[in-house]
Amino acid sequence: MRIRGISVRDIRFPTSLRLDGSDAQHVDPDYSCAYVVLFTDSEAKGFGLSFTIGRGTEIGKLFIAPLVQAIRSLAHLVVGQDFEAIVKDFGAFSRRLTNDSQLRWLGPEKGVLHLAASAVVNAVWDLWGRTQNKPIWKLLTDLTPEELVSCVDFTYLEDALTKEEALEILRSMVPGKDKREEEIRSSGYPCYTTSSGWIGYDEDKIRNNLLISMQAGFSKFKIKVGQDLEKDKKRLRLVRSIIGDNRQLMIDANQVWEVDQAINWVKELAEFKPVWIEEPTSPDDILGHAKVAQALKDTGIGVATGEHCHNRVMFKQLFKSGGMQYCQIDACRVGGINENIAVMLMAKKFGVPVCPHAGGIGLCEMIQHLAIFNFICISGDLKHSVAEYADHLHEHFIQPARIKHGCYIVPDVSDMMRILNNLRNFAPGYSVEMIGSSLINYEYPLGPKWREMFDKKLYEDPSKQVPPYVEHRPETRSSHFQRFHSIQTS
Amino acid sequence: MRIRGISVRDIRFPTSLRLDGSDAQHVDPDYSCAYVVLFTDSEAKGFGLSFTIGRGTEIGKLFIAPLVQAIRSLAHLVVGQDFEAIVKDFGAFSRRLTNDSQLRWLGPEKGVLHLAASAVVNAVWDLWGRTQNKPIWKLLTDLTPEELVSCVDFTYLEDALTKEEALEILRSMVPGKDKREEEIRSSGYPCYTTSSGWIGYDEDKIRNNLLISMQAGFSKFKIKVGQDLEKDKKRLRLVRSIIGDNRQLMIDANQVWEVDQAINWVKELAEFKPVWIEEPTSPDDILGHAKVAQALKDTGIGVATGEHCHNRVMFKQLFKSGGMQYCQIDACRVGGINENIAVMLMAKKFGVPVCPHAGGIGLCEMIQHLAIFNFICISGDLKHSVAEYADHLHEHFIQPARIKHGCYIVPDVSDMMRILNNLRNFAPGYSVEMIGSSLINYEYPLGPKWREMFDKKLYEDPSKQVPPYVEHRPETRSSHFQRFHSIQTS
Repeated sequence: MRIRGISVRDIRFPTSLRLDGSDAQHVDPDYSCAYVVLFTDSEAKGFGLSFTIGRGTEIGKLFIAPLVQAIRSLAHLVVGQDFEAIVKDFGAFSRRLTNDSQLRWLGPEKGVLHLAASAVVNAVWDLWGRTQNKPIWKLLTDLTPEELVSCVDFTYLEDALTKEEALEILRSMVPGKDKREEEIRSSGYPCYTTSSGWIGYDEDKIRNNLLISMQAGFSKFKIKVGQDLEKDKKRLRLVRSIIGDNRQLMIDANQVWEVDQAINWVKELAEFKPVWIEEPTSPDDILGHAKVAQALKDTGIGVATGEHCHNRVMFKQLFKSGGMQYCQIDACRVGGINENIAVMLMAKKFGVPVCPHAGGIGLCEMIQHLAIFNFICISGDLKHSVAEYADHLHEHFIQPARIKHGCYIVPDVSDMMRILNNLRNFAPGYSVEMIGSSLINYEYPLGPKWREMFDKKLYEDPSKQVPPYVEHRPETRSSHFQRFHSIQTS
Repeated sequence: MRIRGISVRDIRFPTSLRLDGSDAQHVDPDYSCAYVVLFTDSEAKGFGLSFTIGRGTEIGKLFIAPLVQAIRSLAHLVVGQDFEAIVKDFGAFSRRLTNDSQLRWLGPEKGVLHLAASAVVNAVWDLWGRTQNKPIWKLLTDLTPEELVSCVDFTYLEDALTKEEALEILRSMVPGKDKREEEIRSSGYPCYTTSSGWIGYDEDKIRNNLLISMQAGFSKFKIKVGQDLEKDKKRLRLVRSIIGDNRQLMIDANQVWEVDQAINWVKELAEFKPVWIEEPTSPDDILGHAKVAQALKDTGIGVATGEHCHNRVMFKQLFKSGGMQYCQIDACRVGGINENIAVMLMAKKFGVPVCPHAGGIGLCEMIQHLAIFNFICISGDLKHSVAEYADHLHEHFIQPARIKHGCYIVPDVSDMMRILNNLRNFAPGYSVEMIGSSLINYEYPLGPKWREMFDKKLYEDPSKQVPPYVEHRPETRSSHFQRFHSIQTS
């Protein structure tokens, strides 16, 4: 089977209108994604996406987000390739995408291009799952330790995790895999909810959300903090008064503090007994995280980070420095499942529980697979690991993540589904395929839902705005003259 | 004065044909840039660029590099703004560009978007220099300590450098500024050349290059290493046999090694007495650099890095950890001059000499300004600081960097130039304005020089390639139907 084409679309949802997803740093997110489909010379397709929080294309004549364009710039590395050859040496393929000798200058292995690589790599995994008729967690679980290790690019990891150590970890966990699979199928994967306390929500909304979540079986809650210390205390007091002392509370500052400020602020909130403080400062500040973690040791509050940790080298240092007590892998930030396998293996070696970051759009759908695989094949630990869950935008997915009593239900391909799959190719894979009508309605900026919002003046219509850039564009190839269309905007 | 428009163009030079610029990691660079022009409601313009090494747009119907698109996505933050208001609170402006509440998700402050911010911020500086009729180093030198500090975003730096400390450093260096300006005008700014030993060059070419450079007055040379230990020894033996024991030798591995491998490899090369080993491993590996620096202490070889160090938080950690003995700031990698001021101030505090990275395209032109400013206003030290120089692509600039006896000649606005400037706006600023014919000839992929190379089959013509992606594009706004053009590429 050969991959013969890729499509990329800019899909956005107007979440900022209700402040869903707001935090101290990201005050007005419109949850969005660059949505990738891989086409093959058979019927099979692969779906992938990279989550963003909007903006990038509002103004101008060409509606192409930098991330969409970055994915296109990787197209030549995947289109035309033989699928079986890719997955046979998946580590080498992922390295080609993340380490192209010219494109790497724009990273390396970080930012827009790494998010782009992740969408493509994950789409290949989805395709693999579909051809095997397995959900990704099951595909991963059924791979041998040798096959799993062959997916990983160990470059720059030698001083933390060698290929041999990785193999040893995976082999040591082979016994008991079946039992753990059975366990997770019956119990589900424990999660906490972030939907109760976005920073833009008032007290009434937080109270209602918490009560609803508790009724639904959640016992773990994350609250955004960091804008105002006194307000934080008031919110957390409210939260504790509702959830009591025995349910778990996490707090998340979304990078707003200086290092020492983080230490002092969190000590002030220690009375509310949060399990962790998430993203206390710059996600790049390894030494800063180590200092915060050290200073908070006595309080019992751990440092959680990872959603902005851009590659395995940064994770390596967070592990080695003791700067991270909870490892929040993200499905899109690093270069796809392959790099996340490396991170999960390091987490095991350094004894740090993996607590995947989710929310956004499609992130819950993806990370459930990673969390379940990590439990079955790497960590074997459910006590300290908890995955994030946020209750929005799931209605746009063909196979949305499902929650029962505060746990992710293991996504599976039922026998009925197996039969259906012969007709429609949707049940297996990475759970990121979106519903056709959502794709049409929410494609930015021409989807009908966006046109509607522009008409209602809820958002500014980019096509009505005067392009702010002075366009230089040659007329034809033969008559290549410098020509400036200067447009006065002021 | 108001900024009323911005243009962005993809300019590329076919340097990979001769392996100029090749190293162990980047084996086939085509030195390129996203070239920015700011237009105002007066005659004044500002020029900026962000250097890349090619690729990003070869294939497909839309020839837009991700970096070009990223710069466009920042356009709304600069176009329509009042110029005087920008430079009055330049720190806040640069923070708006690097910390947009939605776009920051794609970084934050790293990768494509940070390179884009840098091009825009630097173009504003260029515009400022032109309106003041001063080269940038002089504009910077004439700012008061208070004005300089107001340009800097101190976010995340508090545990390394406070605003007050920065002010103190700058104030302590005010005495003697005139004398240092005079000194640097007469001596020039010392530099080393990288042009002798790109990794793709054979021994004869290296020998010739070294002899020519020595004749031109160079006494400091950098050689690329890291592909093969025995070959490296042979090359360095050759180099030392030509330059003797008293001229300076630097070596550069361009990130190819694991941490421990770097230590062992460099120890093997210690006999050739290099001043520094540059980029021994992943640029993200702070702890790795610290380990390498510690292990090499006895050899007298320092660690140099910075060209891929993506923001001030990473520099902060390299300073604090002792992982960097030579601080190689880059003109485009961090968010422009403003962030580089922060880095130079930290370098002073931690006693690390600033040795700017150059080469590429336009980098020499820009960093000479930073190096001169750093000497006059911050470091006051010429002994340990040396700037990079690479001898290519200067012919495309209106005010190319000029070298005499191995030193950058201080770029200045002569009286004659001052008069000319009233007619043509070119002498002052950041020296990055390119010659009109170069812009026309080398714009990718439609410039005549590129058409010529496509005709000669030196490069593949992207417009002749079948687009690898399956395009989805709505017909019109009113009839928005899902439509796939599937193109078989295999």
